[in-house]
Amino acid sequence: MVDFKKIKAFAFDIDGVMTDGGIFCNNEGDLFRTFDAKDGFAIRMAIMNGYPVAVITGGRSGSIRARFLTSGIPSENVYLGSRDKIADFNDFCRRFGLSPDEVMFFGDDIPDLEVICAAGIGACPCDAVAEVQEAADYVSPKPGGKGCIRDGFEKVMKARGDWKFSVSEYKKRF
Amino acid sequence: MVDFKKIKAFAFDIDGVMTDGGIFCNNEGDLFRTFDAKDGFAIRMAIMNGYPVAVITGGRSGSIRARFLTSGIPSENVYLGSRDKIADFNDFCRRFGLSPDEVMFFGDDIPDLEVICAAGIGACPCDAVAEVQEAADYVSPKPGGKGCIRDGFEKVMKARGDWKFSVSEYKKRF
Amino acid sequence: MVDFKKIKAFAFDIDGVMTDGGIFCNNEGDLFRTFDAKDGFAIRMAIMNGYPVAVITGGRSGSIRARFLTSGIPSENVYLGSRDKIADFNDFCRRFGLSPDEVMFFGDDIPDLEVICAAGIGACPCDAVAEVQEAADYVSPKPGGKGCIRDGFEKVMKARGDWKFSVSEYKKRF
Amino acid sequence: MVDFKKIKAFAFDIDGVMTDGGIFCNNEGDLFRTFDAKDGFAIRMAIMNGYPVAVITGGRSGSIRARFLTSGIPSENVYLGSRDKIADFNDFCRRFGLSPDEVMFFGDDIPDLEVICAAGIGACPCDAVAEVQEAADYVSPKPGGKGCIRDGFEKVMKARGDWKFSVSEYKKRF
Repeated sequence: MVDFKKIKAFAFDIDGVMTDGGIFCNNEGDLFRTFDAKDGFAIRMAIMNGYPVAVITGGRSGSIRARFLTSGIPSENVYLGSRDKIADFNDFCRRFGLSPDEVMFFGDDIPDLEVICAAGIGACPCDAVAEVQEAADYVSPKPGGKGCIRDGFEKVMKARGDWKFSVSEYKKRF
Repeated sequence: MVDFKKIKAFAFDIDGVMTDGGIFCNNEGDLFRTFDAKDGFAIRMAIMNGYPVAVITGGRSGSIRARFLTSGIPSENVYLGSRDKIADFNDFCRRFGLSPDEVMFFGDDIPDLEVICAAGIGACPCDAVAEVQEAADYVSPKPGGKGCIRDGFEKVMKARGDWKFSVSEYKKRF
Repeated sequence: MVDFKKIKAFAFDIDGVMTDGGIFCNNEGDLFRTFDAKDGFAIRMAIMNGYPVAVITGGRSGSIRARFLTSGIPSENVYLGSRDKIADFNDFCRRFGLSPDEVMFFGDDIPDLEVICAAGIGACPCDAVAEVQEAADYVSPKPGGKGCIRDGFEKVMKARGDWKFSVSEYKKRF
Repeated sequence: MVDFKKIKAFAFDIDGVMTDGGIFCNNEGDLFRTFDAKDGFAIRMAIMNGYPVAVITGGRSGSIRARFLTSGIPSENVYLGSRDKIADFNDFCRRFGLSPDEVMFFGDDIPDLEVICAAGIGACPCDAVAEVQEAADYVSPKPGGKGCIRDGFEKVMKARGDWKFSVSEYKKRF
């Protein structure tokens, strides 16, 4: 059984995790991505609850940087153009005094494999490549770009009592 | 049974309701959405039939404002950057002399929960988060951005005799 | 049984037929569409084989005009901003000396109903609204924007002997 | 049985193969495509392992050119605006001293048929048109733009011992 309760921080890849893997290309070679609103809500909730959150991606596109300016993730936690993801992951852990075992990391492809094995919970979307699904501790029922970040963040925050939205309380009020 | 006949006005969230939740991001951090043509037709029909229609969204993007300039929704009914959706919902009701029980509201995520409970019919797409589906009076068979607005608007306008398109009449003519 | 052989010309709506209904909106309110490459091939084949082809859409977006500049459809056959589709359909028939019964028309929503009933074959994608599916002579197994135009054009051109691509001939050659 | 081991080079079409067939159109008539990150990884791996890789497409869009500038495919291997795909395919083979039987080619529509028959392995996505699926030696379980390139490249590189990522080795390390 996956122990979601031990997780104190989150890190994730972009393409295929926070997106469906689609990269939109314009005539100048700029690359654009489509992000999911439900994922964005979970990231904001995690930050409001004090969880360190990092992005570790091989991409360098301005659209990634632009996306995270408004998400609340501090820019020093956004590792763009990462060629050695385990080094960036370890840097994130060190800066926040975290053991790798306290971090949940989401990846979907070969360059994520090492961090998936190193993290406390290595997670992936249900459409990750076979090697990543084999290596992961947790395979989300959601695909990349359609809620796998939201699903994993919720699982952790619910296990730790940080996800509290009472439908019945609202219903009583009206 | 849901009483669609009592509804005299509509209000809805954008991301995940009028879109599939996807937010396209360019290098400058501008956010763009993709809307559904069939939803647009239902909104125009509702306005032509005199139903007040409002948008209540946490988003602030220029693309949302641009979309509604051509939809026929008056700009004072477009609540952008809403941080307190129930207050904006109540403002809409007050301005049009509506009881909340006469309004159908569509939402898909936690920030919509309170209005979903307050509205006469709280509605959501079939891919809304679990809490919203639990709270909603009506879960559309359609997902966000693919016809859930159309479905709900049609249900109300048919129940009230405001959706009249006769296939048999056209067929007779030719 | 649908008599594809009688068809001598094609006309179709855009949103929900040649697209999946998605309309991308930028900050200036410009609207953009995504078209399907396989549909484009069928349109070029029809034009090469001498079939008149027309577009009849309520949309006015520059992206529609831009799309058809390169498709081979003459600009006088592109009816943008159409508010009275049956009038535009009749104009197209008149200009080419066609009886409506010789034209296949593809639509997906209420504003297409009248032309669907008037055309020789009223066709629609499998995700058209219920009224259109009820009125149509032919419901394509393909949804809008994912091959319904291709499917209908092929059906007609195969029935008339204008779609001739021999796999076995190529296979013999190598 | 398909003999993936004989393949020494790759060539592929763009629309419907490296994309889902969707072509985004702006007001100026520029065309944009959405590519898949997992496909991109396989292409980079193939190039790192010394496989010649070519693109043969009828498209001319600047977005295609822009995409491949960063993919590692040399620009002389990118055949844009190809009207005679078999000639371009043969030119690619000649320049690299390859027999057509040593090349895997991916296509999805009628203009690809001849090269699919000529190539050592003619491959296609699972949503290729019927004629192409009939002619192909290998129909990938993946659709265009969602991993069919990745699937075919992996099959070849695994058969030839060029795809070596050991999950168990990483797992031991942590």
